[in-house]
Amino acid sequence: MSKDLFAEEVHPSGFSVKYSATEKLFSGKSEFQKVEIYQTKSHGRMLLNDDLVMTTERDEFVYHEMIAHVPMFVHPNPKNVLIIGGGDGGTAREVLRHPSVESCLMVEIDAMVVEASRKFLPSTSSSFSDPRFEILIEDGLKFVRESERKFDVILVDSTDPIGPAQPLFGEAFYRYVHLRLSENGIVVSQGESVFYEGGMQKKLAEVLGAVFPRVWYYNFCNQTYPGGLWSFSFAAKTLDPLKDFRFARFQELGLEMQYYNSAIHTAAFALPEFMKKNLAKCVRNAE
Amino acid sequence: MSKDLFAEEVHPSGFSVKYSATEKLFSGKSEFQKVEIYQTKSHGRMLLNDDLVMTTERDEFVYHEMIAHVPMFVHPNPKNVLIIGGGDGGTAREVLRHPSVESCLMVEIDAMVVEASRKFLPSTSSSFSDPRFEILIEDGLKFVRESERKFDVILVDSTDPIGPAQPLFGEAFYRYVHLRLSENGIVVSQGESVFYEGGMQKKLAEVLGAVFPRVWYYNFCNQTYPGGLWSFSFAAKTLDPLKDFRFARFQELGLEMQYYNSAIHTAAFALPEFMKKNLAKCVRNAE
Repeated sequence: MSKDLFAEEVHPSGFSVKYSATEKLFSGKSEFQKVEIYQTKSHGRMLLNDDLVMTTERDEFVYHEMIAHVPMFVHPNPKNVLIIGGGDGGTAREVLRHPSVESCLMVEIDAMVVEASRKFLPSTSSSFSDPRFEILIEDGLKFVRESERKFDVILVDSTDPIGPAQPLFGEAFYRYVHLRLSENGIVVSQGESVFYEGGMQKKLAEVLGAVFPRVWYYNFCNQTYPGGLWSFSFAAKTLDPLKDFRFARFQELGLEMQYYNSAIHTAAFALPEFMKKNLAKCVRNAE
Repeated sequence: MSKDLFAEEVHPSGFSVKYSATEKLFSGKSEFQKVEIYQTKSHGRMLLNDDLVMTTERDEFVYHEMIAHVPMFVHPNPKNVLIIGGGDGGTAREVLRHPSVESCLMVEIDAMVVEASRKFLPSTSSSFSDPRFEILIEDGLKFVRESERKFDVILVDSTDPIGPAQPLFGEAFYRYVHLRLSENGIVVSQGESVFYEGGMQKKLAEVLGAVFPRVWYYNFCNQTYPGGLWSFSFAAKTLDPLKDFRFARFQELGLEMQYYNSAIHTAAFALPEFMKKNLAKCVRNAE
């Protein structure tokens, strides 16, 4: 236990965040990336891929509730859910709280992330043992290209578009995603930093707009993603995240949440003015 | 110009953020605090008081638009505005964009913050020369106790409740603030970190609730405050920030904004579930 142990994320714009740690629990280099888990003083256990904070025990609830429950409470009856990426398991855990779900398939490219999370992030990966949960270690693009299965909701829970997740930000990928969605399907994707990655956000919105008739962005704020305000894209064949929000089901289920609630569902689609300007004509809530 | 120059904020929970800088433009120690301004690589010029980031050129628009325009677009006719603190001038700049304003008085305890901002943060302190702007270097508590002036909107743009701003988080201060408000007056106060300062938020809500019949919290997210999600309290004698939002005036004025807009006005009052639980029975939007 070194006094000077820390996990550090360096942001390309010129700042860095250092988290004091008491222990490095896991360190490995997979075919795809560096994978590390630290026991931090401030945020519990922290997973980093290639020195970028992916998830922490203290604030993972924000990201995982927001990627899962927004589309799950818009689709009228989500039975089959596909997660691309999501190796720490937090997204699957939230999806599987919905009793309508019959199957939740996670297609993660990197077995090391899954195994490290299973061992060291038990509260995040807790639903790996759920009988409705399936896991496939495979490239997400290959899966959507080759599979013939249909899904009601697809969640693209990827890292940034550098490294292994790069193809998951392209049009070819989303054309296959569209094919894999049932007739009123929804795809929600990790949509990057609002303050720092406006260019990337616009590009993803354009890619989605080339494939889907309806595209939105929605925002959330956690503790450990640089610049606080981050986003998801929401693209759908027929549904509208606001008009089709299933408030009655939300109330009836009464799931205990830490971040998400019905007011947050709607509020998340209110975009700051600079984001609206950046995404004008690309997403419906920037009109 | 040292290669290793940086501004650093250390968070008590166990992490720190380091901003690479090319120049230290100002460094002083006033009667109240350490005051520094750096030219950072990532965020333009950055003001720190006692090693806490107060404002940066790159993201100051978020905080200043949100502290000012939310109450200014709720009050039916804000003529006289008082700012307690706010030495960098950004809050006054936003207030003075409202043509109804006849006077904007800033009562700041620390002349060094004002002078450093005037010299090194010209875009933030730009309205120090507005004829409707007055400045008084004085303790905010002393001012509200001794003054007989009335204000339509009071903005408590303070640092954290350590150091010089400590009395600004107490009930005695808010009893005088209440006396200084006109009959449908509003007071908005810097409300601290949502993720890290839940205890302080609850205490401030209780203090306000002891003095005002109506209290709310609303949130915003900037780049440089630790943990991203921060808040303001909103307390009023008669007005409601949602029902009394003056949408017509907002549209008519057509002020060019970077963060604030009518959807953000409403969305900011949607509180994450953990925050609602913390503030239950203390604020109206946590019911």
